[in-house]
Amino acid sequence: MSDRTAPRSGRLLVRGCDVLRVPPAGECEILPARDIVVADGVIEDVRPTGDHNPSVKAADVIDGRGLLAVPGLVNAHTHSPMVLMRGAAEDVSVEGWFNDRVWPMESNLTAADVRHGARLACAEMIRSGVTTFADHYFFPEQIAEAVAETGLRADIAPTYFSSGGAEALEAGVRFAETWHSRAGGRLTVSLGPHAPYTVDDADLRTLAGHARRLGLRVHIHAAEHLEQTRSSVERRGITPIRLLYETGVLDAGALIAHGCGIVEQDLPLLAEHAGTTAVACCPKVYLKHALSPLTPVRELLDAGVTVAVGTDGAAGHNTLDVWEALRLLALTQKQAVRDATWMTVSDTLRLALRGGARALGLQDRIGALEPGMRADIVLTDLSGLHCRPLHDQRAALVYSARAADVRTVVVDGRVLMRDGRLLTVDVPALLEEADARAARIVDTSHGRAVQHYDP
Amino acid sequence: MSDRTAPRSGRLLVRGCDVLRVPPAGECEILPARDIVVADGVIEDVRPTGDHNPSVKAADVIDGRGLLAVPGLVNAHTHSPMVLMRGAAEDVSVEGWFNDRVWPMESNLTAADVRHGARLACAEMIRSGVTTFADHYFFPEQIAEAVAETGLRADIAPTYFSSGGAEALEAGVRFAETWHSRAGGRLTVSLGPHAPYTVDDADLRTLAGHARRLGLRVHIHAAEHLEQTRSSVERRGITPIRLLYETGVLDAGALIAHGCGIVEQDLPLLAEHAGTTAVACCPKVYLKHALSPLTPVRELLDAGVTVAVGTDGAAGHNTLDVWEALRLLALTQKQAVRDATWMTVSDTLRLALRGGARALGLQDRIGALEPGMRADIVLTDLSGLHCRPLHDQRAALVYSARAADVRTVVVDGRVLMRDGRLLTVDVPALLEEADARAARIVDTSHGRAVQHYDP
Repeated sequence: MSDRTAPRSGRLLVRGCDVLRVPPAGECEILPARDIVVADGVIEDVRPTGDHNPSVKAADVIDGRGLLAVPGLVNAHTHSPMVLMRGAAEDVSVEGWFNDRVWPMESNLTAADVRHGARLACAEMIRSGVTTFADHYFFPEQIAEAVAETGLRADIAPTYFSSGGAEALEAGVRFAETWHSRAGGRLTVSLGPHAPYTVDDADLRTLAGHARRLGLRVHIHAAEHLEQTRSSVERRGITPIRLLYETGVLDAGALIAHGCGIVEQDLPLLAEHAGTTAVACCPKVYLKHALSPLTPVRELLDAGVTVAVGTDGAAGHNTLDVWEALRLLALTQKQAVRDATWMTVSDTLRLALRGGARALGLQDRIGALEPGMRADIVLTDLSGLHCRPLHDQRAALVYSARAADVRTVVVDGRVLMRDGRLLTVDVPALLEEADARAARIVDTSHGRAVQHYDP
Repeated sequence: MSDRTAPRSGRLLVRGCDVLRVPPAGECEILPARDIVVADGVIEDVRPTGDHNPSVKAADVIDGRGLLAVPGLVNAHTHSPMVLMRGAAEDVSVEGWFNDRVWPMESNLTAADVRHGARLACAEMIRSGVTTFADHYFFPEQIAEAVAETGLRADIAPTYFSSGGAEALEAGVRFAETWHSRAGGRLTVSLGPHAPYTVDDADLRTLAGHARRLGLRVHIHAAEHLEQTRSSVERRGITPIRLLYETGVLDAGALIAHGCGIVEQDLPLLAEHAGTTAVACCPKVYLKHALSPLTPVRELLDAGVTVAVGTDGAAGHNTLDVWEALRLLALTQKQAVRDATWMTVSDTLRLALRGGARALGLQDRIGALEPGMRADIVLTDLSGLHCRPLHDQRAALVYSARAADVRTVVVDGRVLMRDGRLLTVDVPALLEEADARAARIVDTSHGRAVQHYDP
């Protein structure tokens, strides 16, 4: 276990940048030419540049002139080590994806693979301005170590299938007890039953009980698409969301992945627990798997439920690019409700940033660049040809900018990338190791699988 | 008029790159470690690297090792100078977009604005690996000059509204007579009636006649969405596509923009002219404007009609990024037909590349890296964190790669970008001028507009 990247003592000054202000409601604003003062990992002040208190001495100064500071992006649902399988499961149905590709490939993974995959994923996320992610995977302690060493912020849920038995369930709980609040507070843990169709009701109840006891939440796939909901109703007489309600999962607090199959009768159940319930929407994988309808974002927001944006694993999403995900969320939700004036630029940014923070229970720490918040700061360069002329920086963030426009990334007051150079990761070594592991991981000739998909 | 960038004499050798082969049917392939030999703007050979004929002397050698060569991307429908309005028309309905934002802004545009906007667009497209575009706009000679000087390949249609009268129609025809096949053959012209709802039947017939006389095609917006088709049927008793059929536009050969409102009874009319008819699908703007259904790509392909991908103007699409457009085409079409196994990686690349070439009538010149084709070559770098491990380069192109991964761009044998540096454009000067023009262009306080939208 490692706390190698506990919050830095000392001060950091980001000088002269514009700052994206994301209010709890209403239009986002651009505050021009600000200094962001950071002390001990916390934003102390955001003030007009040059307005210096002579007593402030910064150990480190970042020149932010010409750049726009945005709160670090939140990837509200992923399986980070699956970057090892990106591009290896294309043009298949949901069933084919699980049963012919991904679950067989996952049976190849060792703890060392997962450690490596998580490092690679952390590097990709830092590179693209993602400072926090909600992970759900096997060998969670390997991911926790990768988070600790690379300096990111994460909530990790140890994936659990009932087929793993009591030992696996207990291992997940022990992981939570051991790792929650570690890495200088950058690491939190949720419990991780995979889904209502792979975890039985008794285990859901047991895990919900542990979550309440430990003050943690449950991160779970549920109502991933409408067919799953229909199948649940046919086989069991209730929707997956009602099952979460009845087993105490919603009462414990839940981060629900996908929810494209959330139906009208689920909304009152979710609304009852709106304060601690969130749904992570990952639109690229829904389109790729030809799903319709999508997550009912408007209905969820109307019910007071938090919605955030995620990538899901890269075996479906191909990247961990949250810029791509939030753009697709805006585009697909406009189309889904047939209203081009909805899911505005400001609402999209708020959903991705404040919604992302709230989805992980971190709304008091991240999601906005304001005094008192942890210093998770992303400096973006909107000077590229694809953003110019720059009529509206907010619109550029949602509809023009690319992950490659991220220049500098700060998490918890520590600089993880500076002017495009990653400081906590040895990228060439990481890529070389990825190449060495690649062929073995995608080999499915053995015929094994971690599970069979039949929801 | 300018022929400043006539095809280079002399030779070019791209050494040691992998090459994407896009066959007319079936799976795309990666040919590893090839040399591409270019002479006088034409691909002479694609052969295993090092397999040198000692008599071949290249004036210029590009080191392609570690890069993947793909045919230059085709943007099959855009309005290039609208980059000047990017981000200035967000979160509005189709009607609001036309009547409150874009057509008022367009009334501000001068010939000099259009020249500048086209240069800016050309720079953005070169930067992102787009080597050919089908444009539709006012002041077409300004765009033609920008294409000539920057070295891109384009088909330009002079936008015509019947409200412009006979003089405007004749000016468009004169532009075609003057500019077609100029710039060393890189420039072709189509006739550009705006749409069946802004151009009357007599003018459509007249323009179709000119197109047949001149051996050119007609580039036109039609059946942009289902409401337009319904409105046409209500007001006139026929669909927009039947109108194109009856006025001779389909007989002349048509590049139809959008076609989301193409209905079943249109398909036999399009099939009858399948050899010279193409539809350009621009999915990002459909989603953004909350349109449904989308272009019926499967039905069009089944009818033998060419489909290609475009961005539309940046006032809707925000970028001229064809990587983004082709990815969205694959994603949205899978969802539209509820089949994740359709619009495969290979089919998407074929549609974008060979389909793009065919949509512009250039299938004998571009769209594939094969001996005899014009040398429009894009070297992409798939070594980034977001592409690794690189299990499948084809999947990476469709689902992971970004415009920023393009390193070197060759058009007609001439290097327009080398290792990320643009060689035919002064980017800082261009951006400075864009900033100077920006505020005036988006000012709509005057209350004028180029047209009123009421299809």
